[in-house]
Amino acid sequence: MPSQSPFQTHKDAVHLRGSGPVTAAIIMAPAGEKKGILERLDAGEIVIGDGGFVFALEKRGYVKAGPWTPEAAAEHPEAVRQLHREFLRAGSNGQQINEAACDLAREVANEGDALVAGGVSQTPSYLSCKSEDDVKAIFKKQLDVFVSKNVDFLIAEYFEHVEEAEWAVQVLKTTGKPVAATLCIGPEGDLNGVSPGECAVRLVKAGAQIVGVNCHFDPETCVKTVTLMKEGVEKAGLKAHYMSQPLAYHTPDCNCQGFIDLPEFPFSLEPRILTRWDMQKYAREAYAAGIRYIGGCCGFEPYHIRALSEELATERGFLPAGSEKHGNWGSGLEMHTKPWVRARARRDYWEKLKPASGRPFCPSMAKPDGWGVTKGHSDLMQQKEATSQEQLKALFDKANKDH
Amino acid sequence: MPSQSPFQTHKDAVHLRGSGPVTAAIIMAPAGEKKGILERLDAGEIVIGDGGFVFALEKRGYVKAGPWTPEAAAEHPEAVRQLHREFLRAGSNGQQINEAACDLAREVANEGDALVAGGVSQTPSYLSCKSEDDVKAIFKKQLDVFVSKNVDFLIAEYFEHVEEAEWAVQVLKTTGKPVAATLCIGPEGDLNGVSPGECAVRLVKAGAQIVGVNCHFDPETCVKTVTLMKEGVEKAGLKAHYMSQPLAYHTPDCNCQGFIDLPEFPFSLEPRILTRWDMQKYAREAYAAGIRYIGGCCGFEPYHIRALSEELATERGFLPAGSEKHGNWGSGLEMHTKPWVRARARRDYWEKLKPASGRPFCPSMAKPDGWGVTKGHSDLMQQKEATSQEQLKALFDKANKDH
Amino acid sequence: MPSQSPFQTHKDAVHLRGSGPVTAAIIMAPAGEKKGILERLDAGEIVIGDGGFVFALEKRGYVKAGPWTPEAAAEHPEAVRQLHREFLRAGSNGQQINEAACDLAREVANEGDALVAGGVSQTPSYLSCKSEDDVKAIFKKQLDVFVSKNVDFLIAEYFEHVEEAEWAVQVLKTTGKPVAATLCIGPEGDLNGVSPGECAVRLVKAGAQIVGVNCHFDPETCVKTVTLMKEGVEKAGLKAHYMSQPLAYHTPDCNCQGFIDLPEFPFSLEPRILTRWDMQKYAREAYAAGIRYIGGCCGFEPYHIRALSEELATERGFLPAGSEKHGNWGSGLEMHTKPWVRARARRDYWEKLKPASGRPFCPSMAKPDGWGVTKGHSDLMQQKEATSQEQLKALFDKANKDH
Amino acid sequence: MPSQSPFQTHKDAVHLRGSGPVTAAIIMAPAGEKKGILERLDAGEIVIGDGGFVFALEKRGYVKAGPWTPEAAAEHPEAVRQLHREFLRAGSNGQQINEAACDLAREVANEGDALVAGGVSQTPSYLSCKSEDDVKAIFKKQLDVFVSKNVDFLIAEYFEHVEEAEWAVQVLKTTGKPVAATLCIGPEGDLNGVSPGECAVRLVKAGAQIVGVNCHFDPETCVKTVTLMKEGVEKAGLKAHYMSQPLAYHTPDCNCQGFIDLPEFPFSLEPRILTRWDMQKYAREAYAAGIRYIGGCCGFEPYHIRALSEELATERGFLPAGSEKHGNWGSGLEMHTKPWVRARARRDYWEKLKPASGRPFCPSMAKPDGWGVTKGHSDLMQQKEATSQEQLKALFDKANKDH
Repeated sequence: MPSQSPFQTHKDAVHLRGSGPVTAAIIMAPAGEKKGILERLDAGEIVIGDGGFVFALEKRGYVKAGPWTPEAAAEHPEAVRQLHREFLRAGSNGQQINEAACDLAREVANEGDALVAGGVSQTPSYLSCKSEDDVKAIFKKQLDVFVSKNVDFLIAEYFEHVEEAEWAVQVLKTTGKPVAATLCIGPEGDLNGVSPGECAVRLVKAGAQIVGVNCHFDPETCVKTVTLMKEGVEKAGLKAHYMSQPLAYHTPDCNCQGFIDLPEFPFSLEPRILTRWDMQKYAREAYAAGIRYIGGCCGFEPYHIRALSEELATERGFLPAGSEKHGNWGSGLEMHTKPWVRARARRDYWEKLKPASGRPFCPSMAKPDGWGVTKGHSDLMQQKEATSQEQLKALFDKANKDH
Repeated sequence: MPSQSPFQTHKDAVHLRGSGPVTAAIIMAPAGEKKGILERLDAGEIVIGDGGFVFALEKRGYVKAGPWTPEAAAEHPEAVRQLHREFLRAGSNGQQINEAACDLAREVANEGDALVAGGVSQTPSYLSCKSEDDVKAIFKKQLDVFVSKNVDFLIAEYFEHVEEAEWAVQVLKTTGKPVAATLCIGPEGDLNGVSPGECAVRLVKAGAQIVGVNCHFDPETCVKTVTLMKEGVEKAGLKAHYMSQPLAYHTPDCNCQGFIDLPEFPFSLEPRILTRWDMQKYAREAYAAGIRYIGGCCGFEPYHIRALSEELATERGFLPAGSEKHGNWGSGLEMHTKPWVRARARRDYWEKLKPASGRPFCPSMAKPDGWGVTKGHSDLMQQKEATSQEQLKALFDKANKDH
Repeated sequence: MPSQSPFQTHKDAVHLRGSGPVTAAIIMAPAGEKKGILERLDAGEIVIGDGGFVFALEKRGYVKAGPWTPEAAAEHPEAVRQLHREFLRAGSNGQQINEAACDLAREVANEGDALVAGGVSQTPSYLSCKSEDDVKAIFKKQLDVFVSKNVDFLIAEYFEHVEEAEWAVQVLKTTGKPVAATLCIGPEGDLNGVSPGECAVRLVKAGAQIVGVNCHFDPETCVKTVTLMKEGVEKAGLKAHYMSQPLAYHTPDCNCQGFIDLPEFPFSLEPRILTRWDMQKYAREAYAAGIRYIGGCCGFEPYHIRALSEELATERGFLPAGSEKHGNWGSGLEMHTKPWVRARARRDYWEKLKPASGRPFCPSMAKPDGWGVTKGHSDLMQQKEATSQEQLKALFDKANKDH
Repeated sequence: MPSQSPFQTHKDAVHLRGSGPVTAAIIMAPAGEKKGILERLDAGEIVIGDGGFVFALEKRGYVKAGPWTPEAAAEHPEAVRQLHREFLRAGSNGQQINEAACDLAREVANEGDALVAGGVSQTPSYLSCKSEDDVKAIFKKQLDVFVSKNVDFLIAEYFEHVEEAEWAVQVLKTTGKPVAATLCIGPEGDLNGVSPGECAVRLVKAGAQIVGVNCHFDPETCVKTVTLMKEGVEKAGLKAHYMSQPLAYHTPDCNCQGFIDLPEFPFSLEPRILTRWDMQKYAREAYAAGIRYIGGCCGFEPYHIRALSEELATERGFLPAGSEKHGNWGSGLEMHTKPWVRARARRDYWEKLKPASGRPFCPSMAKPDGWGVTKGHSDLMQQKEATSQEQLKALFDKANKDH
């Protein structure tokens, strides 16, 4: 779960969060009582990740879109704890949550068989062309928290440039804990045009045991990208485990920068939300592609994670707790009063259905924004202050001309 | 919030829930410290209702779609309490929740300025053609709980036939508490073809001080229906307050039976979910139509209720607590790193945007099911047992021929 | 076929066409050799009309959209003759074409078994509130041509106000020839709100033997409207034959003014064009509704008329000449090299197919324009001169605000 | 204009047409009075091609979809002559039409400044793996007609395999006339995976002076493909002129085999038809890409060709004859009675409009068919007889399972 990334701000505020863009930390179980992440994956187990906390908490009223700082764990611990619990009940055994939430994560941990991961993600400093040493110093500082909390493994996630992700992995490796690394890239590769296959090889060589993607694209795109990563790793004669944590939004119309450029981001993405059946399809395809750490990112709600767990229940040998409250493929409808609703109590119906949007005045695809601006461009430099009204006016005019 | 209605089952199980189809009961404040529902409405205040608990709790993993029994309040009180709290933070001051949740509702009540309502909804007995006395006896029995809990007002909600709603109102009136009555009908009227205007007149004459609609249709349709109700009441020289609690789904393609007949109900409704901007439009139109009790039903999440509160902040004189975490019309994006995302930090952008579905292989409208079956038909009679596999097979074949 | 109507201009130019808005005149056969229109309909025969000449000729490069004056018959007789011939080969036996084309219509007549109709349509004078006498004088003058050409029957078509159509029928009746009358209205009735049923009764009472609708709406809407007309006529104890000549465009999103108000009119209607299978459905539904004069208007091409003829081939006892070049329900594909294309050689395939638009950035429905302006409003008065650049600028600004 | 290609049959009948798959031959002008195709292109002139005759004649009732044999020129010369004339009036000066139509083409030639091209296209023999000598013998035989008719230039068009196109070019070169060669491929290259750049290089080396694409894909895709061809030719240090003759259908959802695999082919393509404004965009983009022979293929009607001519009127220095009947960017609407229709008399309006389909129950994109069958597969071999009912039944069942 990227805490701030899709809503990256260029204010120092991000750094003022104390620990920098620390994004993950999770359910820790008593030593000796549970298997570690690599033991599980090496044994062929499927690990189900959790969903995107910041999007979910924004809809519940506890996180602000824009600055997007994850103070909820401190301000409203009961809300964060409740969401943790829902993902756990949905079958997730690889949860992630912000450092500030470490203590309540530990509390929820006792309710299930989950692992705790600490994570770091891309830095505004890198985009502003700071040196390798400067960027690595930021990562090192963030590590202290995770070491003191004794998390189960570490994740370098939400990186748009493989180079910065390599630096992060190199730092995380110094702890001796298992390291996963995920980029937010599509089949076209990172923002410098490095292909998914080459990205994966570089991450494995840097020391990551688990590689993959998170955020920015829909499940179909993410599975395609991880497949390319796997091909690259195998072609290079290397070995790794694979991981995907896509959006819960359909984004066939994205360009290489992902859903942030879609005009609907972040406040009108509703028509794109995946159904539980879309999620079962994703779980099946991810599994078929050899991905064993299967989770989600922005847009995932507990019932989405439950759908992943249900699709792979046979392979995993168990159903999640939340399935007590969920009939298989709509079977709960068998008793509905209306016979045509009872007729929907079957897999065939839901698998074939092409759901209507109820929005006849809306298109099905959008043209992504993107003004030809990349790393190093002055428009993308960190600003010390909020954008002024005059600056905004200029942006609004430019945008209106574009559409 | 209808606890079981869109998922009506025809098993006795519904009655075995102890309290029958009791659907609402809410945040009660110490006597003398807050104004009652009628004092508020008479004074011209806007009351913001809450959203649909059963749909929200199903997605969070605590309620089962199909039988749809609201045991969550007993089994997972912390989950129900948390959802209460989120709606309250979003600005709702007229919350509703199942009887079993009365005690935790009272607990949350101390956190805000909300009223508690107890409610009853349509009975399987009526559809099975039981007598007026039999049906009224059911309502009377349910009342006991609410009287003992001393709720602030009572609601007869989710009725498809105005006749049964009249019976409910007559029973509720015996308590001396304020009574609201909402039907789940569209502009074409109730399932017997009684027009919205006539429905409203009959409910007012039966004793309801607040009339309107809930569930089954989208906000646009509900505002249209309540407008017809108001015209009917005024034409008859009567007086009432008006209320709407629509779906959070776009349903322009519904027939008179509402969203249950849509092929997407209940597990593929995602593409139809309203955005927060759609909700602001709804709040404005409801207000313009003279509706002062403005809430939601199935599909509403806390951020939807927050949007209603924000749209009417000027009229109400305050913003909800949850708005601390929400920028006005996307203003939180002013600091985003990408200039084209900063360009979205304005009302004009979000109001005009026609959000894409990301589903190019799906249509925008669906043809509702409905096999020409109405009240009294053997297919709609209560069944003692779950539908058998042979019965289901016959239904599946019939449905396949239809599509 | 309305020659100018959907492109009504408010310049005197329309009157300067010499014959006024004379719109129809057709294939005449030697007396005694063929049955008249009423003999055919009375005998239960199906008469297939032709399509819209002006739209078809505009696409072929012979008529100008805007002024839309039908001088093509004089300027490019071979182009008009060829289109006549194509409709005739497609099975039309009730062709209509502008007066100026009478002579070439007669020439083509010898190639088939078709009838010639002369027609009049609504006048700019009526919209400008001229008197009944003034308007009738215009119709009378137009009649001279048809009388001298000895057409088979007369049509009053493309009227938005039943009152003006009544006047036209009264004038046409004076010739002693059979009279048909069609309005361009939908189920909501004429622009004064007179219901389809009442419109039909008034036209029959005025002397029309055939009543119905033409232009402005899609086939589904037109069949619905004529059904209401038929119910009205039968309820009044009267008798008539029924006729429909709809658009070849899907227009579910029209308001009462028809397709002219759709934003796509007249130059971006392509995505709305009906397929041949849509046409077969229309023919079947029109027949089932008791309509026996079944034709088309704007957008119809010869293959659309052929589809009508093919759908009703059993009822009529013959196929049109053009079917020599058309396999039944795609049967011509049986020999295609690709097996999956051969698999399309069947009715079931084409009937069920929901054709994609290939336009993922476009919506499926549009909001009609319409600025609340009706008959008598100064904006709709005849202008002597073309709209000035300043006047246009004001209109453009108003339109931009609307969208 | 491919006479039979998108409807390729595998029966000998194709060979029985006497002249084999001869597909083009056109308006010839008296020697010495007009410039040849290369003189024009070398001088920087823009040549506007014509549209697809077989699709247009099918809609007019003179060609049968399926066998698709072009006997219309012999059976109904007036119909073919009329379509010629319409394309000529629309601004085409590079018309093509079937050999049998050579004589009437010459007749129309006197009406304008057009060139006559004779053409050959891919052979069923090649797909059935006949030898190079066998295939070349077929092309040689077809040449006789063109030589005797003294056409202006020759085209090898509608080839899915560059190898076969090279053979055709080698044969055509023996006449000493200018040779153009177009493949029906997209950006992914020919059916053997040869890239557009390499295809173009091979065709130029084989002797073609003009290279490009025709049929199978929409304008946007074709311009992209020709751009890749041009890059390949320039990179190889060669020179050529470029040509595109795309479909008049939007096909963003095609796979490498083009529109034949789309479920809508060939009888439900209507919603995909390009507007005149789409065509102006195509003309502009083709011109910007350096393409100077700009025409169309299946789906093009005369008004589409006119739109190409109008968009490039400034560059060419003249408007086509058909523009007498066409206002620039909708200017003909300036006199319409309704002010909101007058407000559409401007470029800005039509350029920005996203036309609705009026088909809310249809998707915007389709999944192409294609059963993994390529050249050499038994399913694609020429069949001596029409597919039997049993064979069809097997295909229908397979297709139903697929959807």
